[in-house]
Amino acid sequence: MVYVTRIEHFNAAHRLFRSDWSDEKNAMVFGKCANKNGHGHNFTLEVTVKGDPDPDTGYVIDLKRLKEIIHHRVIDRLDHKNLNLDVPFLQNVQPSIENIIACIWQELLPHIPASAKLHRITLHETNSNYCEYFGG
Amino acid sequence: MVYVTRIEHFNAAHRLFRSDWSDEKNAMVFGKCANKNGHGHNFTLEVTVKGDPDPDTGYVIDLKRLKEIIHHRVIDRLDHKNLNLDVPFLQNVQPSIENIIACIWQELLPHIPASAKLHRITLHETNSNYCEYFGG
Amino acid sequence: MVYVTRIEHFNAAHRLFRSDWSDEKNAMVFGKCANKNGHGHNFTLEVTVKGDPDPDTGYVIDLKRLKEIIHHRVIDRLDHKNLNLDVPFLQNVQPSIENIIACIWQELLPHIPASAKLHRITLHETNSNYCEYFGG
Amino acid sequence: MVYVTRIEHFNAAHRLFRSDWSDEKNAMVFGKCANKNGHGHNFTLEVTVKGDPDPDTGYVIDLKRLKEIIHHRVIDRLDHKNLNLDVPFLQNVQPSIENIIACIWQELLPHIPASAKLHRITLHETNSNYCEYFGG
Amino acid sequence: MVYVTRIEHFNAAHRLFRSDWSDEKNAMVFGKCANKNGHGHNFTLEVTVKGDPDPDTGYVIDLKRLKEIIHHRVIDRLDHKNLNLDVPFLQNVQPSIENIIACIWQELLPHIPASAKLHRITLHETNSNYCEYFGG
Amino acid sequence: MVYVTRIEHFNAAHRLFRSDWSDEKNAMVFGKCANKNGHGHNFTLEVTVKGDPDPDTGYVIDLKRLKEIIHHRVIDRLDHKNLNLDVPFLQNVQPSIENIIACIWQELLPHIPASAKLHRITLHETNSNYCEYFGG
Repeated sequence: MVYVTRIEHFNAAHRLFRSDWSDEKNAMVFGKCANKNGHGHNFTLEVTVKGDPDPDTGYVIDLKRLKEIIHHRVIDRLDHKNLNLDVPFLQNVQPSIENIIACIWQELLPHIPASAKLHRITLHETNSNYCEYFGG
Repeated sequence: MVYVTRIEHFNAAHRLFRSDWSDEKNAMVFGKCANKNGHGHNFTLEVTVKGDPDPDTGYVIDLKRLKEIIHHRVIDRLDHKNLNLDVPFLQNVQPSIENIIACIWQELLPHIPASAKLHRITLHETNSNYCEYFGG
Repeated sequence: MVYVTRIEHFNAAHRLFRSDWSDEKNAMVFGKCANKNGHGHNFTLEVTVKGDPDPDTGYVIDLKRLKEIIHHRVIDRLDHKNLNLDVPFLQNVQPSIENIIACIWQELLPHIPASAKLHRITLHETNSNYCEYFGG
Repeated sequence: MVYVTRIEHFNAAHRLFRSDWSDEKNAMVFGKCANKNGHGHNFTLEVTVKGDPDPDTGYVIDLKRLKEIIHHRVIDRLDHKNLNLDVPFLQNVQPSIENIIACIWQELLPHIPASAKLHRITLHETNSNYCEYFGG
Repeated sequence: MVYVTRIEHFNAAHRLFRSDWSDEKNAMVFGKCANKNGHGHNFTLEVTVKGDPDPDTGYVIDLKRLKEIIHHRVIDRLDHKNLNLDVPFLQNVQPSIENIIACIWQELLPHIPASAKLHRITLHETNSNYCEYFGG
Repeated sequence: MVYVTRIEHFNAAHRLFRSDWSDEKNAMVFGKCANKNGHGHNFTLEVTVKGDPDPDTGYVIDLKRLKEIIHHRVIDRLDHKNLNLDVPFLQNVQPSIENIIACIWQELLPHIPASAKLHRITLHETNSNYCEYFGG
């Protein structure tokens, strides 16, 4: 069993707030992240699958194929977007990295080839913050 | 003469477009960067000053002081902001890194202590793009 | 269950030696790390907590709060210090990264909010060495 | 129980192909990686051992000793080499990172001192790809 | 005048040697870099152009266009290639980073749009070595 | 003319203070850097030489030779040392990065081979601070 990771990037805007809270409460809870006109990040996404290397190719998964899946299902829909407004699979989701990562997992899971198993997603928001998710 | 650099960070949203152009022209010229609801980046800012080290302290400039100047004049006004809407010194400026860096230079220049001289600003937008400015 | 990590930094001096050993034995066992007047590093500390995202905020933990805890309990006491001489919670501890990380765990554990659980600490000493600790 | 990691580097050429396949099939399956005259990478190798810190030294393992083992068993045999042609322990192995990492594990395992236990190897091929192996 | 840099990557094999020298002399002069079957690197290429930002777009150059030029003229011809054997514009060139960078300059120079001026190329071979070239 | 850079590392302790100043004045001027028992850093040193590539080797300078010179003249004397107490060429020097870099220049200059010319030294103290020196 070998664990293989592909790393991709997307640049997006977001804002943390609740529309049912006052501006004061949003500012108190979310601080600068509640800024009305949003802010943004260079997000780095790591997708790890596990499995046995294929005897012919030595691959757990063809990383070109994994790259295509990540781009088709995630990067093309998040890159240069506003995560509050532009992404159908994040509608009605507070776009914290904890919630984004769980939604990315759901988007990727059905598309990983049967020979490999989705093991972990890591999402870096800044050089100081990242989160990891194992699917449950 | 020694060149000393302080590195700081800000996370911001922006959008590249012209309000006097059609959506089609904005999309053609600016591509994904014209997305209506914006996108964002982790920007990294390097500020370089030059001068002779002080005989007592060995400092060209006290880097704690340079950090305070950068935060007071730039980071506090750009971090977790929308560069199109929230920043007085970027009003009516197309927020490309080329234009942002020249505006940052103008904000910092009057505040650098006389013993040092502002030499260069470097602004990184992603791991693939950065620009440098020497003030003229 | 999501795992969230905050990364902080401290710059410190230390020396590896035993006062009950001869200089020769200290040099033989610890090599350059036994240098009498010490040496130092830029240490990078990663603190990982796990838990379920809060339904209102999407946070496992408010990372501003986690940052404050790490600074109050660890960074403020280690940064720009000599780890052999200046740190009460490292008294009588050989300041190897393995021992430092276990002491940092003890300092942080009682202060992590109940909604999250301390999962892992990672301590980087150089670009070539790091250690991880899961608390037991 | 503390996990300690040493990071080392090697620069090598390789080519992915099967001699029993046609050029067309090799190109279809392996893409650019099948280039006849090879290509290459700066590989980064992380070796993680686990154990209890020694009461005298605070070490799980002397990292100078671990570095020597990694260099003697792995780096000296892979650095500035062609992984298809120059490495006895990779003979008849498709040099994918998944296969290389398992072979490195076998080379290192018998040489780790009894006080520590080989836990994980991580092999980075580019800034976008890496794999991990836990030995089974 | 603003300086704008685009960063791209290619992974390639090479070997340093002279066919008119003996194996012994090649080994003495080039060390491990003379290995008969080659070795390889993840090369990082930075291309810097300078100019005045366009009043409409704020661009010195459209970085998407600069990326296309770099890929068409350089990356597509060097990535996953053997620099001794596979690259017409490096024929009969000793593929040291000093020589490669001057050849890349010649390939790019005629294709940079007139509004910008090619200023500097930086080529990183490893985390320990890089070279810069300003065209003369 | 090509500029070639070699990057090396040293880990050292230092303290900024003047013995002819009171503790209060040292604390006021140097802040945490005046801590009595010192602190430390992982310093990164970049040494850049310039020249014409040799027609036979393609080298401005043999980087193995440049590495040896840097190690012999600088790294071996600064690594795992206390910069206030252990380094003859820094005696009576306030060990700020501005002063250290000028002393390193003096140590290296006489030992660079005649075919190349010492162009620039860069010294990184943390991820936030670095300085550059061109020798005059």
